[in-house]
Amino acid sequence: MAGVISPSMPLFVVRNAARGNVAYAPIADGGGRSLQFGVYETEVADRLKLIQRFIGPGLKRALHTLEGGLPLRPIIAQALHMGDELHGRTAAATSLVFRAFTRPLLDAGLDRRTVVAILRHIQSTPGFFLNLAMAAAKAALDAAHGVADSSLVTAIARNGVETGIRVSGLGERWFTAPAEMPSGVIVPPYAAVDANPDLGDNAIVEAAGLGAFALGAGLGLVTAVGGTAEAALDLTRDMDSITLARNPAFTLPALDFVGAPTGIDVRKVVDNGVRPAIVTAIAHRQAGLGQIGMGLARAPMACFVGAVAALARALGAAS
Amino acid sequence: MAGVISPSMPLFVVRNAARGNVAYAPIADGGGRSLQFGVYETEVADRLKLIQRFIGPGLKRALHTLEGGLPLRPIIAQALHMGDELHGRTAAATSLVFRAFTRPLLDAGLDRRTVVAILRHIQSTPGFFLNLAMAAAKAALDAAHGVADSSLVTAIARNGVETGIRVSGLGERWFTAPAEMPSGVIVPPYAAVDANPDLGDNAIVEAAGLGAFALGAGLGLVTAVGGTAEAALDLTRDMDSITLARNPAFTLPALDFVGAPTGIDVRKVVDNGVRPAIVTAIAHRQAGLGQIGMGLARAPMACFVGAVAALARALGAAS
Repeated sequence: MAGVISPSMPLFVVRNAARGNVAYAPIADGGGRSLQFGVYETEVADRLKLIQRFIGPGLKRALHTLEGGLPLRPIIAQALHMGDELHGRTAAATSLVFRAFTRPLLDAGLDRRTVVAILRHIQSTPGFFLNLAMAAAKAALDAAHGVADSSLVTAIARNGVETGIRVSGLGERWFTAPAEMPSGVIVPPYAAVDANPDLGDNAIVEAAGLGAFALGAGLGLVTAVGGTAEAALDLTRDMDSITLARNPAFTLPALDFVGAPTGIDVRKVVDNGVRPAIVTAIAHRQAGLGQIGMGLARAPMACFVGAVAALARALGAAS
Repeated sequence: MAGVISPSMPLFVVRNAARGNVAYAPIADGGGRSLQFGVYETEVADRLKLIQRFIGPGLKRALHTLEGGLPLRPIIAQALHMGDELHGRTAAATSLVFRAFTRPLLDAGLDRRTVVAILRHIQSTPGFFLNLAMAAAKAALDAAHGVADSSLVTAIARNGVETGIRVSGLGERWFTAPAEMPSGVIVPPYAAVDANPDLGDNAIVEAAGLGAFALGAGLGLVTAVGGTAEAALDLTRDMDSITLARNPAFTLPALDFVGAPTGIDVRKVVDNGVRPAIVTAIAHRQAGLGQIGMGLARAPMACFVGAVAALARALGAAS
């Protein structure tokens, strides 16, 4: 469930209703040329000011009209039936959240111009829901962190140089390895040589069974990442071999409504030699040029080998 | 493109932008228990009055803020990428049209309560867009009617007793045969014995390459009609064998973005022995009980045999 806090720059607050823990997400500041893709220019600054002064406070007042905030799980579940995999494509979820916010915005006593500005911002930001999906994934996975001996991956993150994973039974340690190059579709005039290695903290959604793990639901995305529908279904089937369960709350129509493969087990990754796939925006390697494409990357095997070795040592020390 | 007229009961006016001809559609009056499913009771009457007094006039004023009305083709194209096949499932298109109407409603100078009532009506009517899809299909197909010697089906309609088709080169004549029973999923306490034969004028969307013809896009619907994802893809492939083209404007993600099979040729139906499939709401055979399920039906072969024979006679007479 989402709320908004706004001490200085407003953030969404996403609460794990079952466990009570919270995660935070900035309000998405636009498409390809935006701060979240590393672009900072006058238009980006103006949009951030709009978010700070009007959009954040307006959404906060709107959310206060809803008892308990806005439930995110039904939106994610519906969006998976509407062509989103919830990482590279959140067009359906964004359309659903636009609809979910409209009535609260009208009920909040805001002036018409503010309501229009907020709705226009959501409509012009196809990835608006991604930040909420990321926070929802983090709120879910944080609750699963810290289980003794657990081999569950509770986070994947990449900083453009290294990729790291965090494992439930291995405390606050990150297992890192050099980030790989994504492959996919790069928009001219740019080409593969311009791409930065795999980058971003949004792979948290893959760790929660969305993104590449649900690509069999996100068939609207497959040409954008350079694939085919059949390859997308195969990828989701492959992810089944490295996960602990199929999430009954998040079902995939093209696979006859099986649940999304969820909960990466570092042992299965190493045993099966299948690395977790990640849907990713491809960023230009030069800071400030932003997103130049979309594609797929894999988390490096060395992260998982390191985690399995650490688990074995921990178990050996305990026995 | 859609506008609204409201002499007594308001109607959507859908214009074929290329040819200038228009088609009309009532504003959908709700889900299972509604006039369009044959139910008439106090709540239905109240909702119709709301449509007549507030929703229709409000939408008319909103649409007047848009130069040239609301373009429907982009909404249909996007909805096909969001799990709709545009007959049994229009959830995505309805969500998109909710978003498309919101800004015009806010710009139209309506009071807040009217805006809220209109948006609430759209949100609570998952099939809201179906009526617009039907009128769009009719506007497209009417423009193709009356081409000399053409074997193109320009309408399919069923009245619960007979199914009829109209053919471009055969004037105003309808070729009819007894309507078949749909098969699918019937909601308890009802069962197959309660079902009425195939019923409704909405098969116009199948004649335009949507509905069952695009079921490979509407994978969100497959369990609702009792099928599987693979069977849905096969059905769309089968419809390819009886149609004249693949519509490049309406593409199907699960089939790697091929166009929807469009334009039924009565000769191909007879030659290949493949009857057009129709997604259909299943109505109770007793008037007033409304929709009891969802399923698939086929147009009877006798309609097509009759049309081919008439075409042959017309060509013989002309030679």
